[in-house]
Amino acid sequence: SNSLLKWRWALLPPCGWMPPSASAAAMGKRVAVVLAGCGVFDGSEIHEASAALVHLSRGGAEVKIFAPNIEQRDVVNHLKGSPADEKRNVLVESARLARGNIQDLAELKVSEFDAVIFPGGFGVAKNLCSWAVDGKNCTVNEHVNSTLRAFHSAKKPIGLCCISPVLAAKVFPGCEVTVGQDKNVDGRFPDAETASAITELGCKHICKDVSESHVDKANKIVTTCAFMCKAPLHEIFDGIGTMVKEVLKLA
Amino acid sequence: SNSLLKWRWALLPPCGWMPPSASAAAMGKRVAVVLAGCGVFDGSEIHEASAALVHLSRGGAEVKIFAPNIEQRDVVNHLKGSPADEKRNVLVESARLARGNIQDLAELKVSEFDAVIFPGGFGVAKNLCSWAVDGKNCTVNEHVNSTLRAFHSAKKPIGLCCISPVLAAKVFPGCEVTVGQDKNVDGRFPDAETASAITELGCKHICKDVSESHVDKANKIVTTCAFMCKAPLHEIFDGIGTMVKEVLKLA
Repeated sequence: SNSLLKWRWALLPPCGWMPPSASAAAMGKRVAVVLAGCGVFDGSEIHEASAALVHLSRGGAEVKIFAPNIEQRDVVNHLKGSPADEKRNVLVESARLARGNIQDLAELKVSEFDAVIFPGGFGVAKNLCSWAVDGKNCTVNEHVNSTLRAFHSAKKPIGLCCISPVLAAKVFPGCEVTVGQDKNVDGRFPDAETASAITELGCKHICKDVSESHVDKANKIVTTCAFMCKAPLHEIFDGIGTMVKEVLKLA
Repeated sequence: SNSLLKWRWALLPPCGWMPPSASAAAMGKRVAVVLAGCGVFDGSEIHEASAALVHLSRGGAEVKIFAPNIEQRDVVNHLKGSPADEKRNVLVESARLARGNIQDLAELKVSEFDAVIFPGGFGVAKNLCSWAVDGKNCTVNEHVNSTLRAFHSAKKPIGLCCISPVLAAKVFPGCEVTVGQDKNVDGRFPDAETASAITELGCKHICKDVSESHVDKANKIVTTCAFMCKAPLHEIFDGIGTMVKEVLKLA
């Protein structure tokens, strides 16, 4: 029936979850969030992306979401934990996290934003750059690269979590970032060697716990380790909250 | 290299985000979360599912995630907002939200849990039941049906948000639920007619705002409207928090 169809599609784009409000429009920092797909093993880590959006909403930010319009490096069957014989597009899958309200990263205009945030997930290391395959010799997607450089040049803050700090380490040699600890403390940091790779890129790795962020004031880069630490989900959520707060403060 | 491969797969299943802890194991309520895919228009609403998991983690619950092992009713291209010519499996896609740590709903043993929670999203109305097509004349997936009935019989609480309360309305005539408001107040409740359909099923619809939950004490059913209300994301997050809190209290 008509009413059911209406119900089915009532939330379709444009469907921003932040209804316009005069005060928010006047006061809110404008933040771009860049996604890499939808799912920890081949896209953006879902809970990190959602946490960033919740904290941005609470901070009164005006958010627009972007992703590169490219094919995913791979599609992982998250049930089996193995690659699937399938092709998916990073922008189309990221639209799931954005509830349809998303734009091609190629269209991002830095002048329209006060800050940019990159949630983590393997998709960052597979789709936004080639870290998963090439490590510190990785290449960075051209639009990700130009976006990072443009925010940095404009002295606008860049927030990154989980594995995303390697983007900053690759693009801005000499910067300071954290991906958690540089040793596998208590078995909570199984990817501690990422810290060494960051050091080899000429950057400074700062050890931080999951509840903390590091602020590189000179470069306005804010990082937190999120799922690089095996921690309860609410601690990861709170750690991302500190990152978002510092980004909004610097914006 | 080996170390990169290790990094790539370090998080693969089993990868529960709640490391075992003696106190949590002793005190935590055991909660099953039932998903319906991954993405608002054809699966579980991602931010609702993530919010429920964050609040459960903060509440010290031991969580296991389930989904039916069935084909999705449809696959929606969330960028275009239209159906895609593709097939996906509800359990496989739900595994993205669960970071691989998920089981077939057919295997859920009610004796192993103190409560069950169903996040919302169109997937609930497409994959867990046929509400999106049949409204109040919908059929309910057999495993969803038996799961709901088993928790209800055992007097264990059931938490639902967004459109999921229609599952309770269909399976437990006479129960009380909320899907927000029964009128489109301030344009914030475009799907207010859902409340009428619930009434026609012989249930009582209780009007509540996005920040509130309704507790049907007799049936131990806790509901909150979440994205049925056009509200800022952090208000939806907090509303789901009240639902989780009430569920844990009743468990």
